[in-house]
This record gives sequence, structure tokens and C-alpha cells, in this order.
Amino acid sequence: MIIDVHGHYTTAPKALEEWRNKQIANLKTPELGPKVSELKISDDELRESIETNQLAKMKERGSDLTIFSPRASFMAHHIGDFNTSSTWAGICNELCYRVSQLFPDHFIPAAMLPQSPGVDPRTCIPELEKCVKEYGNVGINLNPDPSGGHWTSPPLSDRHWYPIYEKMVEYDIPAMIHVSTSCNACFHTTGAHYLNADTTAFMQCLTSDLFKDFPTLKFLIPHGGGAVPYHWGRFRGLAQEMKKPLLDTHVMNNVFFDTCVYHQPGIDLLNTVIPVKNVLFASEMIGAVRGIDPTTGHYYDDTKRYIEASKILSADDKHQIYEGNVRRVFPRLDARLKSKGL
Amino acid sequence: MIIDVHGHYTTAPKALEEWRNKQIANLKTPELGPKVSELKISDDELRESIETNQLAKMKERGSDLTIFSPRASFMAHHIGDFNTSSTWAGICNELCYRVSQLFPDHFIPAAMLPQSPGVDPRTCIPELEKCVKEYGNVGINLNPDPSGGHWTSPPLSDRHWYPIYEKMVEYDIPAMIHVSTSCNACFHTTGAHYLNADTTAFMQCLTSDLFKDFPTLKFLIPHGGGAVPYHWGRFRGLAQEMKKPLLDTHVMNNVFFDTCVYHQPGIDLLNTVIPVKNVLFASEMIGAVRGIDPTTGHYYDDTKRYIEASKILSADDKHQIYEGNVRRVFPRLDARLKSKGL
Repeated sequence: MIIDVHGHYTTAPKALEEWRNKQIANLKTPELGPKVSELKISDDELRESIETNQLAKMKERGSDLTIFSPRASFMAHHIGDFNTSSTWAGICNELCYRVSQLFPDHFIPAAMLPQSPGVDPRTCIPELEKCVKEYGNVGINLNPDPSGGHWTSPPLSDRHWYPIYEKMVEYDIPAMIHVSTSCNACFHTTGAHYLNADTTAFMQCLTSDLFKDFPTLKFLIPHGGGAVPYHWGRFRGLAQEMKKPLLDTHVMNNVFFDTCVYHQPGIDLLNTVIPVKNVLFASEMIGAVRGIDPTTGHYYDDTKRYIEASKILSADDKHQIYEGNVRRVFPRLDARLKSKGL
Repeated sequence: MIIDVHGHYTTAPKALEEWRNKQIANLKTPELGPKVSELKISDDELRESIETNQLAKMKERGSDLTIFSPRASFMAHHIGDFNTSSTWAGICNELCYRVSQLFPDHFIPAAMLPQSPGVDPRTCIPELEKCVKEYGNVGINLNPDPSGGHWTSPPLSDRHWYPIYEKMVEYDIPAMIHVSTSCNACFHTTGAHYLNADTTAFMQCLTSDLFKDFPTLKFLIPHGGGAVPYHWGRFRGLAQEMKKPLLDTHVMNNVFFDTCVYHQPGIDLLNTVIPVKNVLFASEMIGAVRGIDPTTGHYYDDTKRYIEASKILSADDKHQIYEGNVRRVFPRLDARLKSKGL
């Protein structure tokens, strides 16, 4: 089985964006703002948005199941206040849940959280609990910078975040560490902010002893780990200077990288330096980079092709990346599959 | 000849740091603060700090000449105001100049600028001119984020920076785009902020048409280009979505990457995806990562070993990286060498 751990609902019906635009227009007058009940998206509309997009591409490319979360750039936690984010997260998570109900063999949900800059992350717990208990979510997306490029929250190693981690450990769910749209003009959202956040998050883990406090906490760092594998020698050397344990034991029981790296040499580097057990298959398809690479004639984000073409990975390595590691990092997904006899 | 384009004076005599600490202690009472004349460092002290450190390692490792600039993490443009930075830059640039006078065959200076957050970069021009005209500097270090991790300046493509670019073009000097210490708790200085800035700067070039306005402007992006080569497919794909020209013509006549990547697979990736003409030899030795890699038994930052061991590069490619490209990107260095018959 081939499981893609990084899919976002980037193709939701237009009504969703229109509702959000109305919400944003009425940030200061929420009493005028749209009610949740005003958003009407039928099952047929959901089906069509998936069948003609993600599901069509999954069938073309040969993946079976996608861990599916709300569109990352639309989380935009910096907009409005906690109530704004709370309403918006509730809507987006419900849509991903409905998709998973319509296509139970192909999509399983992961939740966005109703984060808001300067607000205690503890406020996200009711939404997290609902998503796990009622919607069957198998993971969450945690935004280390809800300010959208101003980085005003404490590092992920700070106790500020511990209430979220306690729930993650309790439910045995991992977090993908994923920022949202940058509202800082210096940072292009998908070309700089996303990759910077990945590198930043890894370094926050490296410099701290977070995983001593939470030995079973699991972070999935997307986009191939940002700059980390390319600078693996630098990170090993920095840990050494700080008298930290070897990265193998210090962070690599808890940190995993996905394969959202959109060319063969990048994927090959990832699989040269990062242990197979820490790599999870993902494409973030219909995401940041939707075009066809003129040098290959194939979609940049068809990452399965790079894994298939890898001369570094054995057949068993590929199985681990496609399925074995995913089941280990997402135990609730594993349990769900097992309950279906898979 | 082997030229290292990325050396900082990280080993300056202790008196320099002591002077800086006094300056910082008196930020609000500069009239009490140390006078420039209070800093006394003899030629013998300079000689010793170089001979036992950078020069010893250059001889051990087999490089000939280093482009030498003030310690990057000590630029700390976020401290104090323009006057603070101006005095500090003047002192640091003079020391690098003196080193270049004491060891004219081995060191040639590049200047830090007296940047200060919120201050017009035009104010840096007198120091820049002095360094080029009087001190023989062949390049500058430009900090795209003088706030130290808060990213409050406009992107490098903004006209805000154009006065600096006009002088760079006039003098035919490149800028290494190099941030300084992070004072944002989210960003570890050398493990996150440096790499993030490299990626950010590249993306600011990619999304803009800066090099249409300045066709001869040259940026050296250090630390192997941050995350860029590892995600080269992503950047090609993003440029394509934005209907920009191919990166070859859009940015790669103006942007160069150094080889400060501290392991063999990273250097190999760099040289797999980035054209040889865009790669310049550098080590940033006695810098961020000073230890010995237990997996190789050699210093992480002995980057010449990785270039030498490369199976991707021909002998001529290596010559371009060590010298040919450096002379092309630093025309004032080339002229100086030629005037010596080199």
C-alpha cells in the first residue's frame, strides 16, 4: 500500500473561499459576518472536487491513501482572533472529515488547529479532541508561527506548547509542523517561509531537550525537512559543539521527514543522509508546485517517480517509506487499516 | 590558486570584544562609552591571531587566499542605532584591512556595512566607499535583515536597497548576502537564521525582476545557498508558475553559491544541480562548525576535501570553483592578482 502523508484540501469548492472572504471582511463586525450555517457544500460538490483532482492523480500515479488536512496556506492563523480561527478550523476540519467519509478507502483526515497569535495553545484542545474522537483524525498540523512570518511565538521546545504535546501523547498522534501563509513581505510563502519553518523547527528540537520530556512525541517535518538533509553535516557538527547526544538518539527517534522534494537529486540526497526509518512518503500534490518539469516531462510533485527511480533504496526500503514507517508514525491510521483487515 | 571567498575574522584579539561590550553597555550614554582610540590592538597581536588560526589551517588544508570580512555574528546590526553600527563597522573593517596589509598574499578584505534597522541603506555608502577606495576591499557583506531575525526591512528587490546596488555596480563589487546574530528566540543563529536568510534572499530574487534593473549586480549566497539546491525542482517549478524566465537567465547570471556545506553528499548535490559557473569555493573556517566529523576524522568545515573527492567535477570544474569563478565574480580581486602577475 502507498500512503501519502501530506495532502491538503487545496481544491475545495469555491463556496469555502467565499465564506472565508466574508468572514475576513467582517472581522471587526463579526455579528454581521457569515454564519457557519450559511456555508452550503453538498456531498456531490465534495465528491467532484476530489474525484477530478486528488483522487484522479492518486489513481494515475499509483498511490492508495492520503492523509488529508485543510489547505495549509488557508489556515492563516494570523487573521482575526481565536474566535475567527476557531470557526474557520471547525469548518475546514469538517470538510476533510466529510471527504474521508465519502472516500473512506482513499482519504483519512488530519486536523488543523484553531491557533491564534498570542493565544494559549491550550485553547486548541477542544477542536483537537473533537477531530480525534468524532472525526477519526490520525494526526494534526501544528503551526510553529501563527503570526504568519513574524515568529512571535516561543520555540516549539517551550512549555507554551506542552498542553498540545500532552494531548498528542495521550492520543498517540503525530504533528506535522506546518506554517501557513506568510504576511511578512520578506518571505514568499511556499518558496521561503515553508522551508525556513522546517529548518527552524528541526533546530528548535536540536537545541532543546524536548524529547526527554516527551519521549514518544512525534514531529513530521514536511518538504523533505527544509534545508536539514542538505546541511546534515552542519547539524551534526552543531549538535556536537553543543555537547548534545548524536542526532540518532537526540532527535531521530522523534523527528521524521516527508518526501516533498521535487527533483531526483534532492530525493537521492534525502535518502543518502537520512535513515530510511525517518522518511515518509508524501507529495503535497496539487499544492505549491503544480506544473510539469520540462526536463522530465512529468509533474514536479509526482514524488513517487523519484522514489521508484532511486538507486539508493531497496524494495524493502521503499515499502517502509510508502507504508511501514507511516503505520509506525501514525498508530491510529495503522489501527484503522488493521480493523479493515489491511 | 585556491581562493576561499568566505572567511570571517572570528579570532580577533579579545580586546575587540571587550570594546564592543563597553559600547553596548553605554548604548544610552554614548558619551561615557569607549572611544575608538581606546581600542589598542598591535600588529603583533593581529599577526598571532591569524598565524595560529586561519593561516595555519589554510596551509594545512592547502588554500592560498581568503576573502576576509568581519565576524558575521558580531555585526549585530540590531544593536543600538546608526552611530553604534557606524563606529563598530569602522573598527571591524579597519582590522580586516590591517590583516590584509600584514598578510597581503593570503588575505584580501570584504567590508561589513554600518546597517541599522529602519535606517536608509544610503547611510552605508561612505563606509563602503572608504573600504573600496582606501582599504582595497573587493566585496561587501549585505545583511538583508538588520533587525536580527525580525525581518522588518523590505525584500532585497525593493528600491530601499538600490543606493547600495548602484555603488556595487559602479565599483564592480559583489555582495555576499549574510545575516548576523538572531535576537529572535525562534531562530538559532547558525543553524536556522543563516540558512533561512539564504533561502529567503534567493526567493526574493526569483520573485522579482531585480536583475533587469541591475544586469551586472552580483549576489553571493553563502552556506551553499541555504535550502535552494536541495529544493531546486521546487524553485524551478515556482518560477514556472509565476511565468518567470528559466532560472538560468532569470537569476543565474547574477546569483552565486558558495561551498560552505559540511558533508560530502551535500557538496555532491550542490554540484549536481547548480552549474559549475555559479559555485565558488568557500569554507567559512573557524566559524559555525569547528569540530571534527567522527564519521570522517576530518574537520566538518574542511570543504576542500569534499571538492577534491567529488566524482562529479572535472579537474577544470574544480579550477573554476577554486579560482576562475572567483576572479569573474570579484573583478577587483582579479585585477589585484593580475597586478601581481598572478
